[in-house]
Amino acid sequence: MGRRAAITATDNGTVRAEDPIQVYQRMSALAAELGAINLAQGVPEPRYDDRWRAAIAAALPGSHFQYTQARGIPELRSAVAAHLGIIDADPVITSGCTESLLIALHVLRSRGCERALWLEPYYSYYPGLARLAGLEHGCVPVDFASGRPLLDLDRLRRALTERGSRSRTVLVLNSPHNPSGLTLEAGQWQRIRELVASTGSTVLIDDVYRDFRYGAAEPPYRDLLADGTTMIAGSLSKSLAATGLRLGWLLASPDVAAAAEAVHMHMSNCAPEFAQRAAITLLTGTTPAELAETTAAYRDKRDVLVPALAAAGFEVVVPDGGHFAMARDAAETDGRPDTTAAAHALAHAVGVVPLPLDTFFEPGSPSRSAWLRFSFAVRADAVAEATRRLAARPRRHA
Amino acid sequence: MGRRAAITATDNGTVRAEDPIQVYQRMSALAAELGAINLAQGVPEPRYDDRWRAAIAAALPGSHFQYTQARGIPELRSAVAAHLGIIDADPVITSGCTESLLIALHVLRSRGCERALWLEPYYSYYPGLARLAGLEHGCVPVDFASGRPLLDLDRLRRALTERGSRSRTVLVLNSPHNPSGLTLEAGQWQRIRELVASTGSTVLIDDVYRDFRYGAAEPPYRDLLADGTTMIAGSLSKSLAATGLRLGWLLASPDVAAAAEAVHMHMSNCAPEFAQRAAITLLTGTTPAELAETTAAYRDKRDVLVPALAAAGFEVVVPDGGHFAMARDAAETDGRPDTTAAAHALAHAVGVVPLPLDTFFEPGSPSRSAWLRFSFAVRADAVAEATRRLAARPRRHA
Repeated sequence: MGRRAAITATDNGTVRAEDPIQVYQRMSALAAELGAINLAQGVPEPRYDDRWRAAIAAALPGSHFQYTQARGIPELRSAVAAHLGIIDADPVITSGCTESLLIALHVLRSRGCERALWLEPYYSYYPGLARLAGLEHGCVPVDFASGRPLLDLDRLRRALTERGSRSRTVLVLNSPHNPSGLTLEAGQWQRIRELVASTGSTVLIDDVYRDFRYGAAEPPYRDLLADGTTMIAGSLSKSLAATGLRLGWLLASPDVAAAAEAVHMHMSNCAPEFAQRAAITLLTGTTPAELAETTAAYRDKRDVLVPALAAAGFEVVVPDGGHFAMARDAAETDGRPDTTAAAHALAHAVGVVPLPLDTFFEPGSPSRSAWLRFSFAVRADAVAEATRRLAARPRRHA
Repeated sequence: MGRRAAITATDNGTVRAEDPIQVYQRMSALAAELGAINLAQGVPEPRYDDRWRAAIAAALPGSHFQYTQARGIPELRSAVAAHLGIIDADPVITSGCTESLLIALHVLRSRGCERALWLEPYYSYYPGLARLAGLEHGCVPVDFASGRPLLDLDRLRRALTERGSRSRTVLVLNSPHNPSGLTLEAGQWQRIRELVASTGSTVLIDDVYRDFRYGAAEPPYRDLLADGTTMIAGSLSKSLAATGLRLGWLLASPDVAAAAEAVHMHMSNCAPEFAQRAAITLLTGTTPAELAETTAAYRDKRDVLVPALAAAGFEVVVPDGGHFAMARDAAETDGRPDTTAAAHALAHAVGVVPLPLDTFFEPGSPSRSAWLRFSFAVRADAVAEATRRLAARPRRHA
């Protein structure tokens, strides 16, 4: 996982991304270098910065800087449970959704799980998380043929059962999905619950985009947890626009949560007390109407960006949730099958930097070619300017 | 690692500690319940709380709450390097020494390491860290026979070579050592460097008590790093009394550090920007004289507590560094070989709560019996009061 080999020159002189996690920094650096609009990184609009500053400042006088309960201070655990609408849940507070996912995979591994299965394309950290936890991984492709992201549940069933009926597999479900925007509907969640029960699998929900559903109802969290086979990993990073505060959670049945707390104690151990107090302030002080307003603002940005990408000649997958739109230009890939090259070409041509998605697919995956990810988790004026620039895009096959 | 089975009743009605990491919370809860002096937990005196409050408050206005560089912001990396006296080092900033150790073990595992070797007794988190990283572990006992903690380097050599000359072993060295206070001298460090080079091992220094040496010179960090086989894990937790801020570091050769950064991105990812800025303020604003004053205050507390334990009938291991004194009462163990029972008996008899060290030894270790750990990382008046209470201890074999 060294960064030294992050970019290598290929024989025909183009660059190729090889490092699944440095790609974000690399594309952001390219945007800075070119003075381009950076749609490569998933950083939420800083809508809550002033509140965070005030809440942390208010927490400081009565706070301390020593170890606090590894599980999280009780008031924060209650506030998270209330935020999720599952008031009897008792989450483990972590240093963010990434740590929550890694903890969950470790706990599952210690209980006999051997493989993680997730949708392809996938957040490029997933393979590293599975590797650190000692798990193999497999993928089920999202279907893009209709122009919307679709999940084939029969294909998912086959993947879950290909190793026999008791699968020792954890299904990692990210809905809304990064990067495709796939957002599961109530009926699909119900079928997934049945699938998991019938195959002896477990589910780990990567719930980080939970508040960014543009139509779908809330997933049946309470039922999922009651099944005893589900863990839910989430964080404040997106919903309260604090990716850098490193506060997340993990929900699970009581015995799994106790094991998760023990693993957490071997990682970040506990979250700073004043940060937890500030999070209580924001969680309890942010109204549902305010959260809905944020969601609507993101949906509006999607509705600006997606038509602009289509008008600029891209084949777009219209997201039903999340922060991103996937797009590609089939014509563009004729002479340049390399996705990183396509991203660089767009950056240089119009000053808009997307994320090349090579590292979100398995090497050799038939679906891999030329997909780019455009984030609309940026300010509305940045989306508007990106739209104007895309309209000026030179077309090879107009 | 479930907490449910943390305390089990044994046939003779005593309690037994079985969980290596919940023991701290359990004994602290006992202290609270009895209104006793809590010498069970290693929480530093909060000497710097006001400075932390001021530094965080000052960092907030210009700060943000989004992802920052995973490696750590450059000014903090420089400040840590200067603090350690190795100005050309480039640490990876982590969420604390615990995460640093876990990251290091993962990187070593990915490079072919199979086993961690450490001194016994050991910090009770070590086995869990090795397990999470997929490593076996072994121990070399510290020798207490003289009343001071001693390391037999010939025994260490045998342990490093018992699997052949290229050992695929990482030696985890904690000096000053928790719980014994063993603090390596310059000549010992030199011999360890030679041992490591001749056996093809690597060294991971758990450097968290670095500023609490009561005589020994600073370890040869620069030489150790230059050897290319050493990683150094440290934090602000003890030196700047901020165990709860979760800011640590890992030093290694450049390629190992790059791999460590990648693993870190899969755990806590990055430390909050304002916390890093506050840490720069404290690291650059705390003078060597102030750090020396803190060290002297801890040494003074050791020099009060150790004679008091001896006068109360305990066999004491005199620590040369760190925050703890190990002690036991051989007479006490006649009818009660159970260390947790001995700790509870002392708590009830005089109102002083030590940590039972069962979980710091291997099951079945001949050295295990009856050792307790007394922390002097508490306020001086708490040490004084503990001393008065110990003087009133009822003696079974006076």
